[in-house]
Amino acid sequence: MLDSVTASWKATVLSLHPEMFPGSLGLSLAGKALEKGIWELEKVDIRDFAYDKHRTVDAIPFGGGAGLVMRPDVVDAALDSVTGNAGPVIYLSPRGRLLDQSLAKELAAGPGVTLLCGRYEGIDQRVLDAREVIEVSVGDYILSGGEQAALILMDAVIRLLPGVMGNKESADEESFETGLLEYPLYTRPAEWQDRKVPEVLSSGHHGKIKQWRQEQAENITRERRPDLWEKYLDKRNDTKLGH
Amino acid sequence: MLDSVTASWKATVLSLHPEMFPGSLGLSLAGKALEKGIWELEKVDIRDFAYDKHRTVDAIPFGGGAGLVMRPDVVDAALDSVTGNAGPVIYLSPRGRLLDQSLAKELAAGPGVTLLCGRYEGIDQRVLDAREVIEVSVGDYILSGGEQAALILMDAVIRLLPGVMGNKESADEESFETGLLEYPLYTRPAEWQDRKVPEVLSSGHHGKIKQWRQEQAENITRERRPDLWEKYLDKRNDTKLGH
Repeated sequence: MLDSVTASWKATVLSLHPEMFPGSLGLSLAGKALEKGIWELEKVDIRDFAYDKHRTVDAIPFGGGAGLVMRPDVVDAALDSVTGNAGPVIYLSPRGRLLDQSLAKELAAGPGVTLLCGRYEGIDQRVLDAREVIEVSVGDYILSGGEQAALILMDAVIRLLPGVMGNKESADEESFETGLLEYPLYTRPAEWQDRKVPEVLSSGHHGKIKQWRQEQAENITRERRPDLWEKYLDKRNDTKLGH
Repeated sequence: MLDSVTASWKATVLSLHPEMFPGSLGLSLAGKALEKGIWELEKVDIRDFAYDKHRTVDAIPFGGGAGLVMRPDVVDAALDSVTGNAGPVIYLSPRGRLLDQSLAKELAAGPGVTLLCGRYEGIDQRVLDAREVIEVSVGDYILSGGEQAALILMDAVIRLLPGVMGNKESADEESFETGLLEYPLYTRPAEWQDRKVPEVLSSGHHGKIKQWRQEQAENITRERRPDLWEKYLDKRNDTKLGH
């Protein structure tokens, strides 16, 4: 039997498909952490807050256009039902601030998060304004609903909670933690299909290995992601100047 | 009973956790489309290609460091087993090209995709080089494994396959299709908590509505995503110059 632990981090998910949670998360690190009580999952079915007997949650958009929009009154009532979460309310939307590793860390350091998942075309703007909802996007692409995005956000945040990852070091050396993409990795066999592992990695010379990895990480970032490379250079220059 | 249809698009997923697929996708549009035979899902358990009795797929990295790296020989053998997919081989990795709507469209227009999901620290670089694997990232954050990213990519691509979305128009007006974030949406009730729907949207004047929406989309994009706004301006200027 598992020890009884009071979860210190809570995810509240508002969705028309609460059965999608924890979904594929259940099989990842986050799933094990949920069983251990490191975090808590609360699910709210938005449809429970519809006002009519048909349980209608959406209607056609003012001004015309394809698809349906989720009603502000229904979403507002669903949000009112959330009382046990002190974290921010986030609406998963392609119009939002892009999720990145620093936002994931910020959310992991807080008390939790309330995730509002839209379906159809989206949610009436007035309830987003009235409740000061933060819009967050997981990337510049369109998904079939906010649920997939919520699962991604939860995965990125929950693995950073204390006690979730086995090895603390793993989190510190990976991509984005240093502002650079990660250097290439090599493992056994030492030679495979005439391809050898770079010699320096078998040298046992820690200083040279560190330097080689740093150079590789810089090269890959410069080639593949000039945008991240510029930010890295800015930050490095600021540090050198003592800011 | 469903009609028997030969799927024209195929997703092949290589993973240490094939049971994660279709996962939460099964409850979205993609799940219905899978049932209808619009696309086909093939799952490969990478562990089936281990060489030893312990079914080892990973080993410690050359040069030291935390975590384990997936062996090139095992991943190579797993990739060799995929013979029925003419699409590109994509490794989900934070070091990759960022997934965006244009890449999703490109993949939807092709025959399918083979998705390689990493666990642990990642995959030995040599097999990625030897197989000319394309690295794709769903965003600048770290996930517990490639599986969550593969699910996101599949969701973004599959909803664009012919016959998946009910209304063709829905795909054309949404964020990114125009290079702008989407304008705000409003639905019933016309007045909610002293907040009225913008008057122009009830005017019935299609030209004015279109203009208002364009202005809103431009304002939101300029304020929230200067990077997308710059790209939009560049593209608009190119078009005006006849390029």
